Amino acid sequence: MTTVDLSLPPALTQVSLHDAFWSPRLEANRACTLPALHDKLVEVGALDAFDLPEYAKRGITIPKNHQVTPQMWWDSDVAKWIEAASASLVTHPDAALDAQIDDAIARIAGAQQPDGYLNTYFTAIEPDKKLTNERDWHELYNAGHLIEAAVTHFQATGKTSLLDIMERYSRYLAGVYGPNPGQRPGYPGHQEIELALLRLYHATGRREHLDFARYFLDQRGQQPPYFETEALARGDNPQDFWAGTYEYMQAHQPVREQSQVVGHAVRAMYQYAAMADLAAADGDADLRAACERLWDDLTRHSLYLTGGLGPSASNEGMTRPYDLPNDTAYAETCAAVGLAFWARRMAALTGDAKYADVMERALYNNVLSGVSLSGDRFLYENPLESDGTHRRWAWHPCPCCPPNLARLLASLGEYVYAVSTQEVTVNLYAGSTLRADVGGQHLTLTQESAYPWRGDIHLSVELDAPATFTVRLRIPAWAQGATLSVNGEPQTVTPDQGYAVLTRGWRSGDRIDLTLPLLPRRTYAHPAVRQDAGLVALEYGPLVYCVEGVDQDADLHALSLARDSALSARFDPDLLGGVTVIEGEAVADAIGGYDLYTSSPPETRPAHLKAIPYAVWDNREPTPMRVWLRETAR
Amino acid sequence: MTTVDLSLPPALTQVSLHDAFWSPRLEANRACTLPALHDKLVEVGALDAFDLPEYAKRGITIPKNHQVTPQMWWDSDVAKWIEAASASLVTHPDAALDAQIDDAIARIAGAQQPDGYLNTYFTAIEPDKKLTNERDWHELYNAGHLIEAAVTHFQATGKTSLLDIMERYSRYLAGVYGPNPGQRPGYPGHQEIELALLRLYHATGRREHLDFARYFLDQRGQQPPYFETEALARGDNPQDFWAGTYEYMQAHQPVREQSQVVGHAVRAMYQYAAMADLAAADGDADLRAACERLWDDLTRHSLYLTGGLGPSASNEGMTRPYDLPNDTAYAETCAAVGLAFWARRMAALTGDAKYADVMERALYNNVLSGVSLSGDRFLYENPLESDGTHRRWAWHPCPCCPPNLARLLASLGEYVYAVSTQEVTVNLYAGSTLRADVGGQHLTLTQESAYPWRGDIHLSVELDAPATFTVRLRIPAWAQGATLSVNGEPQTVTPDQGYAVLTRGWRSGDRIDLTLPLLPRRTYAHPAVRQDAGLVALEYGPLVYCVEGVDQDADLHALSLARDSALSARFDPDLLGGVTVIEGEAVADAIGGYDLYTSSPPETRPAHLKAIPYAVWDNREPTPMRVWLRETAR
Repeated sequence: MTTVDLSLPPALTQVSLHDAFWSPRLEANRACTLPALHDKLVEVGALDAFDLPEYAKRGITIPKNHQVTPQMWWDSDVAKWIEAASASLVTHPDAALDAQIDDAIARIAGAQQPDGYLNTYFTAIEPDKKLTNERDWHELYNAGHLIEAAVTHFQATGKTSLLDIMERYSRYLAGVYGPNPGQRPGYPGHQEIELALLRLYHATGRREHLDFARYFLDQRGQQPPYFETEALARGDNPQDFWAGTYEYMQAHQPVREQSQVVGHAVRAMYQYAAMADLAAADGDADLRAACERLWDDLTRHSLYLTGGLGPSASNEGMTRPYDLPNDTAYAETCAAVGLAFWARRMAALTGDAKYADVMERALYNNVLSGVSLSGDRFLYENPLESDGTHRRWAWHPCPCCPPNLARLLASLGEYVYAVSTQEVTVNLYAGSTLRADVGGQHLTLTQESAYPWRGDIHLSVELDAPATFTVRLRIPAWAQGATLSVNGEPQTVTPDQGYAVLTRGWRSGDRIDLTLPLLPRRTYAHPAVRQDAGLVALEYGPLVYCVEGVDQDADLHALSLARDSALSARFDPDLLGGVTVIEGEAVADAIGGYDLYTSSPPETRPAHLKAIPYAVWDNREPTPMRVWLRETAR
Repeated sequence: MTTVDLSLPPALTQVSLHDAFWSPRLEANRACTLPALHDKLVEVGALDAFDLPEYAKRGITIPKNHQVTPQMWWDSDVAKWIEAASASLVTHPDAALDAQIDDAIARIAGAQQPDGYLNTYFTAIEPDKKLTNERDWHELYNAGHLIEAAVTHFQATGKTSLLDIMERYSRYLAGVYGPNPGQRPGYPGHQEIELALLRLYHATGRREHLDFARYFLDQRGQQPPYFETEALARGDNPQDFWAGTYEYMQAHQPVREQSQVVGHAVRAMYQYAAMADLAAADGDADLRAACERLWDDLTRHSLYLTGGLGPSASNEGMTRPYDLPNDTAYAETCAAVGLAFWARRMAALTGDAKYADVMERALYNNVLSGVSLSGDRFLYENPLESDGTHRRWAWHPCPCCPPNLARLLASLGEYVYAVSTQEVTVNLYAGSTLRADVGGQHLTLTQESAYPWRGDIHLSVELDAPATFTVRLRIPAWAQGATLSVNGEPQTVTPDQGYAVLTRGWRSGDRIDLTLPLLPRRTYAHPAVRQDAGLVALEYGPLVYCVEGVDQDADLHALSLARDSALSARFDPDLLGGVTVIEGEAVADAIGGYDLYTSSPPETRPAHLKAIPYAVWDNREPTPMRVWLRETAR
């Protein structure tokens, strides 16, 4: 059933970015976020924690005065840092960083037990509880992140030091979990290892990893629930599950039968990403259909305009269709990162640009809002309205988001292009160079643009020899009236699944010019979304806009925009590192009088409205923010 | 400093109600709520708990198989039931109920310790912790409610059985708390005993109770904080206070210096009620000024339109000025009950109708919404918007609200009138008969009306002999164009502090006719209230209206009302026990299409809007509800 010519992301080494919009963010990620994360991992003891199992291995009790109390999720935080740092080495060779990574890997090697098991917490602190509670504890999740780190480290550096460790651990786990006598029919409480094993399969070509990922996905949601079996084995009452429902971790029904996005948002995204990847690798139509149903449910009912998801803090996840509160939106950064993972795989699986449209929406909005322009302040939750008290922080007791962001940004090239033997797909518009073998020749494709501020995009082709292949250029759904030319010759833009498709003989010096009309535009939510009723949002290209109090002369809730008022876009090089602002004339409720309630509607006055990209909110002093604005229909 | 002619509520025995609006609610209270509460108190063991101290007194360990585990606040729940049941006996003599009350009082007597101390929990369960944590535990609060019960029981039945017990306990407490050597400079964590002691003073004339109330009020907020002293005495770190701030219980500064309503809403209301009562009894101008400042702060910045207060669940209380979220409004029933307590005392203290206006607003809206029409289902929180999942319950682990409501409704006569030697003040319009000595004669004043559905109010005077005195009739602030006549002769309505004042010689057969124009009216919140921006509320007389989903042909958030559209009022005898509905033409966003976000504003269609009084929401099937409606400016 295997598809012959899978469309896959390029290797990290195949893409370099030189983009006015992204490069400063990637540079902040490299120069500020990565060292800041390493400092924090040292400071809290997450790196030192890998030395603890060494004591255990030697039968030494951990000294009482030892500073380190490992948290169950620390291994994953170190792993994500290794992944981000390794990816960064591709574009910025850095011997000191390379040495830091090698040091971390050496510690990880030291922590691996003779049987292959590898987890700091359950080796050092509660060895008797090892692999006894996959429902709540994070052993397989940690393993997954370490596997991803190993794959990226291998791809970035060619070193197999971490890859060997993790293949060994993976084989240990494949001995524990499986259908055979003496094995357990289990799967993780927090999905992650499934997509990691699929990456391990793509990197090594070894089908054992693919099969193990498939086993975990197929076991999920089977009866009787494994988490019940496991709870009974611990002597616990399965009814005492704190989350109350296996929907929390999408284990309420077999994954192929799932059609509603439920529960914890990050777990859902990681699961669906793995499902999409497996569907492509196996050519599995049922699994693909499940992915498409789930995608449809998410994007029709539960996705914030910013590409965020999971409105509720209580389950870090989903609630009901059309429930999209703005001020209390949880919309965890990791969930949007996970959506980008899933969307990229759906785009590759289906060849449909609607997935890349959402990927772009998540990346340019809810993902990017997760880190400050400076690279050292983070948002865990990404609400669409704030009274000015929701601020970025430097660290978090559960610091999953910053290194997740860091690894995504360091690997951004994988999102710009997708490559198969006969096709190059351009999913994002960003100044970059792709080197890939396509149509039997070595292609260097150079993209130049000032996107998302300007809509003219230029691609130039270099080839060792002329070759025939397809270039697919995504025409975003919002881009009405896009124009396209090859070597100055206009092409008809009739998108196929959202892509302009150029199949032809190419030769060095060929030039593609694409223009996406960029204008401020108004966006409305479905009338079933009660929180957005009567409100309008502003967008510009892939960017969702917001108003911040500091830019207005009225309270944000007092502002309203006439439906037909003019909006203008202006690039301000001095604002927030250089952004295009949207401006327009609005009206504001006048300052009220003495009484809390009156029989007179508020007087209004003219007001000037100035909106900035949501991606860069909360980068100045504390100030209220809103995405959805009151609209006067007139 | 004592004021000579205090305006006080009439005794319960002086007023009887026979009102189309209130009588069915009072009857449900008597015939359904009271027995339901008694059943629950028996079922959970709160009444049996009074037998536990008897074991302790005899040195008997509570049997292990004993069903009762007292809660710290149970004594107060029993007390509130006794208070409500006693008040009910005045209008409905009921030998069985009288016997139930006597039985409860006999148990309470049995629980009183030889030294006068009286608390089930700290006698039976944790005797070593008696009076060691007034900050968090509820001993003085429970004492206060038992004192209030004793006063009402005495006033309703003439019996002193509970009064004697509580005067004895009060004297025990006055020995513990005070300025003398060996006494503690303390005060309650949850205010209540202060207003109870003032009622005890009014009922008995004994100044010791007034002085004890004044001591508690004066100690509050003094330095060093008593709760710190007390915590240190327990061996606790005062910094470990779970609420984080003494603002939580209004103990952050001396009460005379307070000017902002902060913290737990019920505690605040009970404190302010006691302050107003003490200010009147003492003629204390400073205390009165503090009450007026606090009133001003509450009504200008933090009062819901429904007379509810305390937007936040986390502290069951206040947040910031103009922060009035509708869907997450805590607005505890008990807080509105407490506001009615305070408002009645402020009206008596100042003679200003603005206080009775707010008292009426609380009673007709947030108080009454707390109990179902059937009398056996309750709301603890009274939000101004619900998605249909916020429902009434039959009982609550902390069942403070139902008996609080029950005692208020059973004592409603105290809110209708206020009486001094030369004046009768009519604060509420409700069919009722007042018997009082005024102007040296025995007056029977009979009020007839169909208020709040109709605005014509008729009062007739019966006197043993002609007499000169003043009748003050509240002209609600919303009643523009009220007309008044005496014996058919028109009177000029020029309100003095909000009251039409009729001072004259009165004789039997005199008749007063007052007409308050009743029309549906639109109300707007101050532009600083972000949650109500662009929204309008509907009112009719004292009633705030809401829309329920079941009455509309569109989603509530999809409806909007044009600013100048006609509204009509119509009495529907078959709806919710007979209510006036407000109807009008609105527009509704049409049902949306497939996409969650679009570039087209929603189409609209005509819709019919039908609003019901907020007081009777959630008396049908589960359905969404909103008070504040979207408004189209033109």
